[in-house]
Amino acid sequence: MAKRVFNFNPGPSTLPLEVLKIVQDEFLDYKGTGMSIIESSHRSPEFDEINESAITLTREVLGLGDNYQVLFLGGGASTQFAMVPLNFLGPDRKAAYVDTGSWSSKAFKEGQIIGDAVLAASSKEAGYKFIPKMNDIKYPADAAYLHITSNNTIKGTQYHEFPDTGSVPLVCDMSSDIASRKLDLTKFSLIYAGAQKNLGPAGVTMVIIRDDLLAKAREGLPTMLSYKTHAEKKSLYNTPPAFGIYIVKLVLEWIKKQGGLSAIEKVNRQKKDAIYNLMDSYPDFYRGTVEKDSRSWMNLTLRLPDENLEKKFIAEAKAVGFVGLKGHRSVGGIRVSLYNAMTLEGARKLAEFMETFRKSNA
Amino acid sequence: MAKRVFNFNPGPSTLPLEVLKIVQDEFLDYKGTGMSIIESSHRSPEFDEINESAITLTREVLGLGDNYQVLFLGGGASTQFAMVPLNFLGPDRKAAYVDTGSWSSKAFKEGQIIGDAVLAASSKEAGYKFIPKMNDIKYPADAAYLHITSNNTIKGTQYHEFPDTGSVPLVCDMSSDIASRKLDLTKFSLIYAGAQKNLGPAGVTMVIIRDDLLAKAREGLPTMLSYKTHAEKKSLYNTPPAFGIYIVKLVLEWIKKQGGLSAIEKVNRQKKDAIYNLMDSYPDFYRGTVEKDSRSWMNLTLRLPDENLEKKFIAEAKAVGFVGLKGHRSVGGIRVSLYNAMTLEGARKLAEFMETFRKSNA
Repeated sequence: MAKRVFNFNPGPSTLPLEVLKIVQDEFLDYKGTGMSIIESSHRSPEFDEINESAITLTREVLGLGDNYQVLFLGGGASTQFAMVPLNFLGPDRKAAYVDTGSWSSKAFKEGQIIGDAVLAASSKEAGYKFIPKMNDIKYPADAAYLHITSNNTIKGTQYHEFPDTGSVPLVCDMSSDIASRKLDLTKFSLIYAGAQKNLGPAGVTMVIIRDDLLAKAREGLPTMLSYKTHAEKKSLYNTPPAFGIYIVKLVLEWIKKQGGLSAIEKVNRQKKDAIYNLMDSYPDFYRGTVEKDSRSWMNLTLRLPDENLEKKFIAEAKAVGFVGLKGHRSVGGIRVSLYNAMTLEGARKLAEFMETFRKSNA
Repeated sequence: MAKRVFNFNPGPSTLPLEVLKIVQDEFLDYKGTGMSIIESSHRSPEFDEINESAITLTREVLGLGDNYQVLFLGGGASTQFAMVPLNFLGPDRKAAYVDTGSWSSKAFKEGQIIGDAVLAASSKEAGYKFIPKMNDIKYPADAAYLHITSNNTIKGTQYHEFPDTGSVPLVCDMSSDIASRKLDLTKFSLIYAGAQKNLGPAGVTMVIIRDDLLAKAREGLPTMLSYKTHAEKKSLYNTPPAFGIYIVKLVLEWIKKQGGLSAIEKVNRQKKDAIYNLMDSYPDFYRGTVEKDSRSWMNLTLRLPDENLEKKFIAEAKAVGFVGLKGHRSVGGIRVSLYNAMTLEGARKLAEFMETFRKSNA
């Protein structure tokens, strides 16, 4: 077996080795059933326990009450871009979007396809280098919702505070930073997150929706596009992405075992500090691409003095076991993704590598 | 480890043990990458090879040309119930549906939610005991499409011939019998199938669409609900259900290794004969629920003389390692699902058990 690499992929991404080992160990025989979990009926007691646990653990880990329904859906966060306006943007309303990068602009585009979507704020003109100030986010007082993207995987920015939207439902795509820090989530009416960064494998999307917003969902939608369909059946209206839910449950158990989100946040802070501090020591060599107060803890984006050096950096890093460091094809450069399952050791070793690389190449 | 059971679940269902072992063996380190396949980027060379192979193998195993696009989507076949009319049922057209059971009537309902859907034939009045005769399927000459369900998982019926629809596109939900027999699929314009019966785990749906129909797909749809989005990007517009696609690829390789669909069909015929012949030997004890010429090879439905005997049958079967035999909660009775990965040995041993059970209980 090859040595396990330090995997800085932006998603799908590294997962806790402990979780992977459990999956491997019980893959041919799930808890004495004589079959794999992927061969088990989604109506079996075994899967029912997984689904119920995944729901309960989500509420527990994220600090949410029973007034939040937890759904596990297929189709990725990109399908949520459409489901949100389909369910909540009626013909006589406007929905407001903050545009902070590629994914939020895709969400906004779906809002425009489906109804009357307007921009509440945007950092596009500035190359998405920052998250707008909370006071600069403007939207109609009767907006159907305000949509934000808490972490911008490609651009490397992250919200470190959130707008108070009063009676306007706050909807958030948390795909790339859910469960990475301790937050009061009660101001959010709807949160969704593709699992493939902090929660599990690709193919399952967590949707968390507060009862008061759910009650307002529109009727007459295609069945699978209605949140009510899935909430009423606890994601079992049809066959759900069962293997993904199973792993999400194991990852949530792993988060609890680490000490919950306070402990996770503490480690994530040390990880991002290891890299950002190194970058800030050599700002002419490791050039951060975003404003400091908008920096992401999850996806750290930087440029080197020239593209050839960037290629060299990526190649040499790979050779010593650091993979997935290439920036998104739309922006280039380097991106260091530090999701929950990346160890502090991994971040520190990468910082050491960066120190050495600079010495040899500055 | 518990002894591997004979798993007659209707889906998710048994998968080839050889495939499960490959997945387990390489789960912590996919082909020397130092990471699990579920940690691998969907833009990596490793996943690209999987996706390309899955597409190529689908065409090869099913006997389709390059004029069929092969997609792997999330959301289950239930999402296809909506995507088909969203893409192909314009405001001035009618779509025709044959209603042969629970799933086809759900597909029909989505057609009605989205546009003008009409019934082309139905066996509902007869309790869905048969597949309508091809001559009894009537639809407008300019219908947007005719939708059928090739195998009815719950009711236990299956098409053994298909209508010639001429210029009307034939659309088929093959979730529960795709790749189970050698068929000429070139008369179909669109085929979809949830993977969790004959192809792989839950969470991925195969969609096969002919170019001439794809070209007619409507514009202006939500991005993720448009077949064109996915066809143009080979299912990689967003992060696909990667683990599911990986297993589908392995299952298709396994089918090839068995000798392709001719060999699979031969074994499936022997399997269903083992059970149906036994039933036909004791028709007062093992009472088939559907007309003989509509019998499914995949899901064999039957009743025993009374419900207590059925409970006893299910319990005693389970005790000796035959699981998943309970009929769907909407119909009761017994259901024997004989998907590709169920071995001939399994079917024969179940037939022996049925013989013995009858002797003791008739």
